[in-house]
Amino acid sequence: MNLDAVRVVLVETANPGNIGGAARAMKNMGLARLILVKPRHFPDPEALWRAAGAGDLLAGAVVVKSLPDAVAHCGLVIGASARSRRLPWPALEARALGPWLQSETGLGDTPIAVVFGREVSGLTNEELQLCHVHVYIPAAPDYGSLNLAMAVQLIAYDLRLATLAGQPDPGPPPSGLAISPDWDAPPATHAEIEHLLAHIDETMLQSGFYDVDSPGQLPNRVRRLFQRLRLDHLEVGILRGWLKAMQQRMPAPCVARKTGLDRET
Amino acid sequence: MNLDAVRVVLVETANPGNIGGAARAMKNMGLARLILVKPRHFPDPEALWRAAGAGDLLAGAVVVKSLPDAVAHCGLVIGASARSRRLPWPALEARALGPWLQSETGLGDTPIAVVFGREVSGLTNEELQLCHVHVYIPAAPDYGSLNLAMAVQLIAYDLRLATLAGQPDPGPPPSGLAISPDWDAPPATHAEIEHLLAHIDETMLQSGFYDVDSPGQLPNRVRRLFQRLRLDHLEVGILRGWLKAMQQRMPAPCVARKTGLDRET
Repeated sequence: MNLDAVRVVLVETANPGNIGGAARAMKNMGLARLILVKPRHFPDPEALWRAAGAGDLLAGAVVVKSLPDAVAHCGLVIGASARSRRLPWPALEARALGPWLQSETGLGDTPIAVVFGREVSGLTNEELQLCHVHVYIPAAPDYGSLNLAMAVQLIAYDLRLATLAGQPDPGPPPSGLAISPDWDAPPATHAEIEHLLAHIDETMLQSGFYDVDSPGQLPNRVRRLFQRLRLDHLEVGILRGWLKAMQQRMPAPCVARKTGLDRET
Repeated sequence: MNLDAVRVVLVETANPGNIGGAARAMKNMGLARLILVKPRHFPDPEALWRAAGAGDLLAGAVVVKSLPDAVAHCGLVIGASARSRRLPWPALEARALGPWLQSETGLGDTPIAVVFGREVSGLTNEELQLCHVHVYIPAAPDYGSLNLAMAVQLIAYDLRLATLAGQPDPGPPPSGLAISPDWDAPPATHAEIEHLLAHIDETMLQSGFYDVDSPGQLPNRVRRLFQRLRLDHLEVGILRGWLKAMQQRMPAPCVARKTGLDRET
């Protein structure tokens, strides 16, 4: 893993002090790329004050309108999350994240996003389901609510320690997440996977595979499955070519759907 | 190591927000005891706001007038420090601190202090020399200045991870710092060691061993040596009895000295 490949994405941060604190924490740990999704106040003097010597990092921060925009060019999206969710997702403890990324030598210089949610409510289920893997901090059970900038600090620290250790330590990767070092194609980007998922959903509806009015967990499970696969660029092309060929033999879609992203019901 | 044994000591903190941030970081990681040495503003609304759900920890914080007062009853004093100092001291990387404390089963429930200095200038050399061992965070070389509360967060995190891991991992202890699990006496407290050091200094001057006007590094080296030894309670008693016996056979001291603490010259 190259620390330069890591983007820290803060989603709808309310307190600009936390943006500054996160920027300082990042620079202290050797991270440089900050992406802000709809920050409530930015730029802001409080952010600049808390950033201290990391003003350059704030100045270079990219502001975008949605999480999909923020991670579109990333080959791996990691979401910071409390541990338990209704639909289990591949998850790693923060300390295990760095060694696992180190062992994923197939990533090369592919951009990696680490996504942090709102101060009070974190990431939505929909946002968490955009992530390949979740990362959690094993906080005290009686008070597990970390300040946002502190969470950025801890995860940046763990990433830094992993690069300092130098030695890739494979450890047990989350099921299905491994890409071998001698892989022959780059990992698919987030946007490529999103297009594939939308395409799959279209064919499922077109084929009458599920009822659009009562999808249940089906779209989420499909999403989880294809993200867990860690498809490469060529594989996405193959799957989409195949889907397209099948579609051309099916009657036109009975309903229009713009996305496969469905909040859990 | 029991996390209840750990005291976080903040020395002359200027910004009350950092006290609150440190309190929240501690509670998130399962630490509960906060000691403040001459805080500039405390109590303070900014501290309370940044503490969020850790107001109880602020309410229970103990305010004292000096670092020796703060650590008097501690059997082990750890000072947070940047890495290089003129007089090398036993030092550990933050991630190694927890496993090392876990391996020091002889500590039992002895209070352990982790001391953090001022926002701008850290700990003085004199304060650092009160510590048995230093701990440092391997920050980025081009911007290594961490926010105080962030440093507390990282070290509390590493301590927590070590207790969660459960398994003591001896690793390489700093030279001379090991106390075996089946030790037959409790570790000496900070105050006991200070009295011993003052007593040694008194006998050195009384015996004309060094010149009080040009001590050079001698007092610091003696301090480093005796702190590194990790004496137990009985050993301190033995050494002091022996010194006293020798003193009674020597002429009265030629000069009065109140302490063995000398800033490096």
